[in-house]
Amino acid sequence: MMEIYLDNSATTRISDEALDKYVQVSRACYGNPSSLHGMGFSAEGILKEARGEILASLSDRDSEVVFTASGSEANNLAIIGRALSKERYKRGAKVVITDSEHASSSEPAKYLESLGFKVERIPTKEGKIDTGALLSALTPDVILVSVMMVNNETGALYDTAQIAKYMKVRCPDSFMHIDATQSYMKLPFTKASCGADMITLSSHKIEGPKGVGALVIDKKVIKARGLSPLILGGGQESGLRSGTENVPGIAAFGEAVRIGRLALRERYERMNSLREYLIKKIKDDGLDELSLTLPVSHAPHILNITLPQIKSETMLHYLSSFGIYISSGSACSSNSKSPSSALISYGRSADEADWSIRVSFSHRNETKDVDMLVEKLKEGLKKLTRVR
Amino acid sequence: MMEIYLDNSATTRISDEALDKYVQVSRACYGNPSSLHGMGFSAEGILKEARGEILASLSDRDSEVVFTASGSEANNLAIIGRALSKERYKRGAKVVITDSEHASSSEPAKYLESLGFKVERIPTKEGKIDTGALLSALTPDVILVSVMMVNNETGALYDTAQIAKYMKVRCPDSFMHIDATQSYMKLPFTKASCGADMITLSSHKIEGPKGVGALVIDKKVIKARGLSPLILGGGQESGLRSGTENVPGIAAFGEAVRIGRLALRERYERMNSLREYLIKKIKDDGLDELSLTLPVSHAPHILNITLPQIKSETMLHYLSSFGIYISSGSACSSNSKSPSSALISYGRSADEADWSIRVSFSHRNETKDVDMLVEKLKEGLKKLTRVR
Repeated sequence: MMEIYLDNSATTRISDEALDKYVQVSRACYGNPSSLHGMGFSAEGILKEARGEILASLSDRDSEVVFTASGSEANNLAIIGRALSKERYKRGAKVVITDSEHASSSEPAKYLESLGFKVERIPTKEGKIDTGALLSALTPDVILVSVMMVNNETGALYDTAQIAKYMKVRCPDSFMHIDATQSYMKLPFTKASCGADMITLSSHKIEGPKGVGALVIDKKVIKARGLSPLILGGGQESGLRSGTENVPGIAAFGEAVRIGRLALRERYERMNSLREYLIKKIKDDGLDELSLTLPVSHAPHILNITLPQIKSETMLHYLSSFGIYISSGSACSSNSKSPSSALISYGRSADEADWSIRVSFSHRNETKDVDMLVEKLKEGLKKLTRVR
Repeated sequence: MMEIYLDNSATTRISDEALDKYVQVSRACYGNPSSLHGMGFSAEGILKEARGEILASLSDRDSEVVFTASGSEANNLAIIGRALSKERYKRGAKVVITDSEHASSSEPAKYLESLGFKVERIPTKEGKIDTGALLSALTPDVILVSVMMVNNETGALYDTAQIAKYMKVRCPDSFMHIDATQSYMKLPFTKASCGADMITLSSHKIEGPKGVGALVIDKKVIKARGLSPLILGGGQESGLRSGTENVPGIAAFGEAVRIGRLALRERYERMNSLREYLIKKIKDDGLDELSLTLPVSHAPHILNITLPQIKSETMLHYLSSFGIYISSGSACSSNSKSPSSALISYGRSADEADWSIRVSFSHRNETKDVDMLVEKLKEGLKKLTRVR
């Protein structure tokens, strides 16, 4: 069966180059970076190289890169680690997020609430940060603002730089964390341009290996002792994340970054034109029953489509039977049964959220993938049971 | 240059079979296990298979396997997650460890102390748990006993089954966590035989990939809601560890377990005879200046050697210059400057600990590796500067 993979926001296939790097490092340089012998030093050198690739990709000379096992872990480290840091630990201090964060940000925020921290959730209706609500949330007791750059379900691109500007005036001692899981290597930005003090990255969303993420941390955060580790022990990663580093995985992530950076513009155009092509085809083919979620500012690779009273899961299984893979809501939270927060925040009803699918492109997709998707969607609309 | 790798307690070289598995899964089955389509289901199936291998290797039918990124993370989850669990969270409750745990257990315990928990550290002098101290520590307010099975620096094998027996009588509601990082696939045990309710495993110590670990958790712990997650989010791994799973890494870990289980007896004999051969050679060659740490019960692969007033780091660099790789103390904590707790606990002075090296074998080592090590050690003893 032909396979058409259109679930690239859930995860991507690792590139051959990254996989080759993984194999090469696994074979040639298997030492523990903490070991004080030749093999350890080589491993440490490989970590350093990967850190360099990441910092270069963000035009960033003032940060530490702390490798984690996932974007989720990096989000947890930024949010919980910030609140529980030695320097700023005070119950009652405030953390600001949006109402449409990934569960790996919203759940840590909820946990902090249970510990006595204040959490404010800024509305993101129609894919835009509510400026009024934001401004009134930014009081001097804020210790952290944590916002995703691109929403994983709608593709909405939030103006994080504007938030950073407000923060400088209203809560200058606070830090800004940006979850760039869905924007990194999808659209161009630098650490300075997005306004972040900390940035979450995920390897497996950019054709790197699974099991690797990173939190990029401005040195001023570390200098202010503004972050505590979640995983304690041998003191690896500047003491911020203990455990033997995943050397080959990190090297392969670095390789994916290196390649992705060179190809960024081309890949952006490619994904964006596939998205435009899909939108146009849905209109041209008269699929007026489909309702598209089209944020004004958006990432190039995500399109959310609300079906006419057909449960997303039903359509998903139908398409899967033809080897077409898409997602219902966020794959990362498909374990949960509650409706997608991003679509609700956007203004969809709970039912509509339940009828929504997400198509997410890679630069490797082709227009014929879109043709096949639309053909099978059309068939599905005729054949599948509607909710009464 | 010939390379002689004798630092297998720090990390091992991934086996060709495990690496092949990694590559194969990366290529063929790159979906997100949370995705509700064919590619997601295949990925989920691969995780299930690896869980099965691990449970089979422990003759265990009553546990969940929660995959982590390292043994360190698994230790943190067991210790911090236990203390902060919904069911048992009370400051003042007691956690019992030994005085020679790996930093990824001792640091979490210290953190719990800072939160108001009681922590008792049982002496392990001469490589044995102090029974008297243990018995008086096991009071009804104990919620967790966390003990390593094999000490990573001395190779001492602790009698965890005996501890479990005492616990059943004195604190029957508490749980026992065993850090099996240095014993798994080195010597035979089952979950029942070691008495554990939770077991930490690390992939890269057994010829699996780096960046993968596991906490095996008896279902009764989960049923009692006796453990809280450290990393929150999408609710992967039974809600106990969020973040997209490292599917190829986990599959490769499963493969290392499968092979290691079949070869366990043979590998044990092989490593143990190499260790014996080294001990004998040191004696036969008249290297009386070297003082060996020889626990009565011990793992087959670790030998700790105290040098005569030569800093371990000096010897390590000397040997490394000939391509011979060993360790000073625990590689995992070589970032720290404090003397090895295990050797101090064993009865060595702080100076002696600083002069100690660790040789750790793989079943792939040969007697000629030992010959070369001893030859260069002998040279080093003559050439290297002694501490006055």
